[in-house]
Amino acid sequence: MNDSELAPLIPDEGEVGFVEYQDFISTEPFKFESGGMIPELCLRYETYGRLNVAKDNAILICHALSGDHHCAGVHSMDERKQGWWNFMVGPGKPIDTSRYFVICSNVLGGCQGSTGPGSINPASGQPYQLDFPKLTVRDMVKAQSLLIDDYGIDRLHAVIGGSMGGMQTLQWAIDYPQRLGRYIALASGARHTAQAIAFNDTGRQAIIADPEWKQGNYESDAGPARGLAVARMMAHITYLSDVGMETKFGRKRRSEDNTQPHFDVEFEVESYLRYQGQSFVSRFDANSYLYLTKALDRFDLHGPSSLDQTLSAVTAAGLVVGFTSDWLYPPQGNREVVEALLRQCKDASYTELAMDFGHDSFLVRNPKLYELIRHFLTR
Amino acid sequence: MNDSELAPLIPDEGEVGFVEYQDFISTEPFKFESGGMIPELCLRYETYGRLNVAKDNAILICHALSGDHHCAGVHSMDERKQGWWNFMVGPGKPIDTSRYFVICSNVLGGCQGSTGPGSINPASGQPYQLDFPKLTVRDMVKAQSLLIDDYGIDRLHAVIGGSMGGMQTLQWAIDYPQRLGRYIALASGARHTAQAIAFNDTGRQAIIADPEWKQGNYESDAGPARGLAVARMMAHITYLSDVGMETKFGRKRRSEDNTQPHFDVEFEVESYLRYQGQSFVSRFDANSYLYLTKALDRFDLHGPSSLDQTLSAVTAAGLVVGFTSDWLYPPQGNREVVEALLRQCKDASYTELAMDFGHDSFLVRNPKLYELIRHFLTR
Repeated sequence: MNDSELAPLIPDEGEVGFVEYQDFISTEPFKFESGGMIPELCLRYETYGRLNVAKDNAILICHALSGDHHCAGVHSMDERKQGWWNFMVGPGKPIDTSRYFVICSNVLGGCQGSTGPGSINPASGQPYQLDFPKLTVRDMVKAQSLLIDDYGIDRLHAVIGGSMGGMQTLQWAIDYPQRLGRYIALASGARHTAQAIAFNDTGRQAIIADPEWKQGNYESDAGPARGLAVARMMAHITYLSDVGMETKFGRKRRSEDNTQPHFDVEFEVESYLRYQGQSFVSRFDANSYLYLTKALDRFDLHGPSSLDQTLSAVTAAGLVVGFTSDWLYPPQGNREVVEALLRQCKDASYTELAMDFGHDSFLVRNPKLYELIRHFLTR
Repeated sequence: MNDSELAPLIPDEGEVGFVEYQDFISTEPFKFESGGMIPELCLRYETYGRLNVAKDNAILICHALSGDHHCAGVHSMDERKQGWWNFMVGPGKPIDTSRYFVICSNVLGGCQGSTGPGSINPASGQPYQLDFPKLTVRDMVKAQSLLIDDYGIDRLHAVIGGSMGGMQTLQWAIDYPQRLGRYIALASGARHTAQAIAFNDTGRQAIIADPEWKQGNYESDAGPARGLAVARMMAHITYLSDVGMETKFGRKRRSEDNTQPHFDVEFEVESYLRYQGQSFVSRFDANSYLYLTKALDRFDLHGPSSLDQTLSAVTAAGLVVGFTSDWLYPPQGNREVVEALLRQCKDASYTELAMDFGHDSFLVRNPKLYELIRHFLTR
């Protein structure tokens, strides 16, 4: 869902304005959950608002699969693309940067500046590609904790995220219970369903089937563009809902011209999706896509013993939000996390918002979501 | 859903046994709805049971996208694959071949023996490929009517089909109202949703993105195997349900071996889907897939004026069956056909079966479905 396509539902009360990204470099070797190691790592990130003297007003925002560290504001007059959650983050906004110091970093394994498969391996002088270690959500969170350490922040006011960001959020609450006061996980869950794994694997096969993938060893200016575009088209369908697509596109046609070549764009929805596929290729690395989707498929809070056991480590207060039309990470998958937290006598709440935007609902302006987040952060 | 994987729910009361396919050749030029023309056509088909002297006991079965004319029985001791609806068609079975003469033909545009993009164009001596005319469901039905003519059958006892076969069934009732006594359309509807078009176009893009597609001009022993496999993997997910996949596969693993290459099969569901993709390639032609999915996307009983207007031509008695877990052709899309028929004072009935097999439910043994079909055919 492109934010710029949506009319504001409430007046903007203030804007983050211009921001610059920063790079956090850790020169210590980083050990992955799988046992793999990289000699150093970089996390690209942005911050909004000011860290107070007590260093207790920081909020970490975790982005989704195709998101990045550019969460709010704009980079420059020439590069005016607003951050992906700009309507949520800013002075007076639900995540109020006049009160909170907000941090958003590109995930480990990503491709927007943080260390990932496309980064140069110092040992070889070549990109890691498939030599990049196996990646988990736990690894992403561990890398973020180093950035938080670097700021001298002992305890985050909150961790917030949707989708893959929601999984990171839950992992934060489990792995670093003393380091966060509260967390908000949107449109996520304890683990992927078989259907979600199936879609991800089909996307990966689309990439791997592209001869330009070359077993992962493509040049940095090349790669499996067509396979990645197909993977993105399919994934994008799973981020929307049938009702939402019907409302937005229905069977509207781009052309009634019966003489056009057979398989050109005919319906609006085809045009939209093909554009989504093409534009994704220009901003995303195929190997990153493989690694990140695998990390999602492997994420499983039911292991190694049980969901209740995994969540027993949590001490922070939690808010979990599901969306009625989200069939990729359906409401019941969100709800079961809170049910297990409650069985473990944790401070946790679940709610469900009725929206037609499918999995992407958390990226869509909604005053109800604003209020939930605003009040949960200040309670 | 592979029939052989499923245990019988009722004892077989009889079997069709050995069958041989036949080829119907029409040497008259065939004109497509789009205005395109081919100089002759072939439909490959099978029959079960005997046509009576009055020629009024014939039932036409229309197959789905990936189906074919081999609907019941087996071809030989060496080729023992049962027809795709073998549990439904045979002596004493719901479509009782001791009473009815059953015909099932591979669709026009298909690739199992009937004329399609892979057939030789007599004008050039080369395969049609993309010179094959634009195809519609109406064209498929018109070709079938020639086969019925050839048998000297004025009026079919019934037309029956599921999915794409259900669309053909509805088109039969609209285009040839006097030529059928009743029809049964399963898991179909009046037209594709935006979501269904989106999935189909993504599948087509997977094929077209494969360099081996060569603008449709691949050799008959080659073609875009990898793209077609990806298209099939994705489509196959849409034929199942989330609940069905969770029950069958969940997060079962093929391997816990952490040392395997990064993107090999890890989960059972990946193994299953990759197998479905691979096996489809060996039996299906990529250009046929493009043509048939386009015909489905263009199928729209709401046009040219309204659904009620289109259905006003119908005179036969109709039974439409939706399946609760079918999210590709959802129940409401089936139901709206009958609602419009009832508004037009037609003899039509709708029912919905609660099954967890998604769109493929009509291909799964179910005594309730048996009874519905058996009794509707004999009433």
